Amino acid sequence: MNSYSSKLVENAVNELSRLPGIGKKTALRLALHLLKKEEPFAEALGNAIIRMRKEIMFCRECFNISDAELCEICSNPKRNKEIICVVEDIRDVMAIENTGQYNGVYHILGGIISPMDGIGPNDLNIAALVTRVGKGGVHEVIMALPTTIEGDTTNFYLYKQLKNQEVEITTIARGIAIGDELEYADEVTLGRSILNRTKYEDGLEN
Amino acid sequence: MNSYSSKLVENAVNELSRLPGIGKKTALRLALHLLKKEEPFAEALGNAIIRMRKEIMFCRECFNISDAELCEICSNPKRNKEIICVVEDIRDVMAIENTGQYNGVYHILGGIISPMDGIGPNDLNIAALVTRVGKGGVHEVIMALPTTIEGDTTNFYLYKQLKNQEVEITTIARGIAIGDELEYADEVTLGRSILNRTKYEDGLEN
Repeated sequence: MNSYSSKLVENAVNELSRLPGIGKKTALRLALHLLKKEEPFAEALGNAIIRMRKEIMFCRECFNISDAELCEICSNPKRNKEIICVVEDIRDVMAIENTGQYNGVYHILGGIISPMDGIGPNDLNIAALVTRVGKGGVHEVIMALPTTIEGDTTNFYLYKQLKNQEVEITTIARGIAIGDELEYADEVTLGRSILNRTKYEDGLEN
Repeated sequence: MNSYSSKLVENAVNELSRLPGIGKKTALRLALHLLKKEEPFAEALGNAIIRMRKEIMFCRECFNISDAELCEICSNPKRNKEIICVVEDIRDVMAIENTGQYNGVYHILGGIISPMDGIGPNDLNIAALVTRVGKGGVHEVIMALPTTIEGDTTNFYLYKQLKNQEVEITTIARGIAIGDELEYADEVTLGRSILNRTKYEDGLEN
């Protein structure tokens, strides 16, 4: 496709198609939709994107996205600062927050160790985590990383960095998802769910 | 999902998810991508969207999008102004231009008659087409609308509006697509392709 009849449209299509998962055809569909709508619609979208990128901050404690120097979670006096949950990115924070089951704080690594993608420990917020735990007052670090080779590598690296400090290191439970049939579960998950079985009485308390 | 940790992100996600085919999850993925990139990336995207909507014009002849009062096609002295191809929207112009087989001009209706969606003849650029043909100098109007009930309705409406003028009214050929197997073609298309068969010799000329 070459001729968009308009440099303005061509430019917008090119910019839109640089977003992940949006090809030229989708970008054109979006651009035509914006042209059909009133001017304030496109203006609100454009300004929201520019303002977000320009004014966003990252929490100086946990590296969560934030509108202030400290994020809403770190600045909340009701959150338990003695427990830090380590996650890959901001979406994981949202997912855990949505469960309503966690009252500690977070530490966002900004990725996981992945030599294939050229991501090493120094590209992640790991040193800051070690410093943060080293300041004391932290009883437990929960590692909530993906169960992939990269996630396991990162878990092990974090463990080695933190094991000399006085802090309990845990990982989130792996097992059969609630509602899932046992016969369809993969062997590794099923095997681990038997190894890490929990007391029936403990489940009753929830 | 409620807590995006940032009003700025929440706002951008809301705006992005108002685009067609983009839900909250995709919008969040796009917003996080924009946050990972440098500031000029988001700025270029936002400004391209705002500028396009603000500065776009519609060609006063054919209603194509344009950066000037007359679009590139209508203002091109090499295009044959005696043939007008009527299409539903701008994407159709691009598709036909890409074939390199058409040297006439266009008329963009901006939709097709669709009572189900509340779109009547007055919502489309039909009156302008009738006036344009009425001015004279047009020998042929090619209707290149979709083969749907709405497309057929629009074709018939256009035909009624134009039949008293001295102009030839044609529709694009319907038939078996090149490369398609006959056995998989639907009956209507196959039937029409036999009714509207063309001279073998005519094909040799291309």
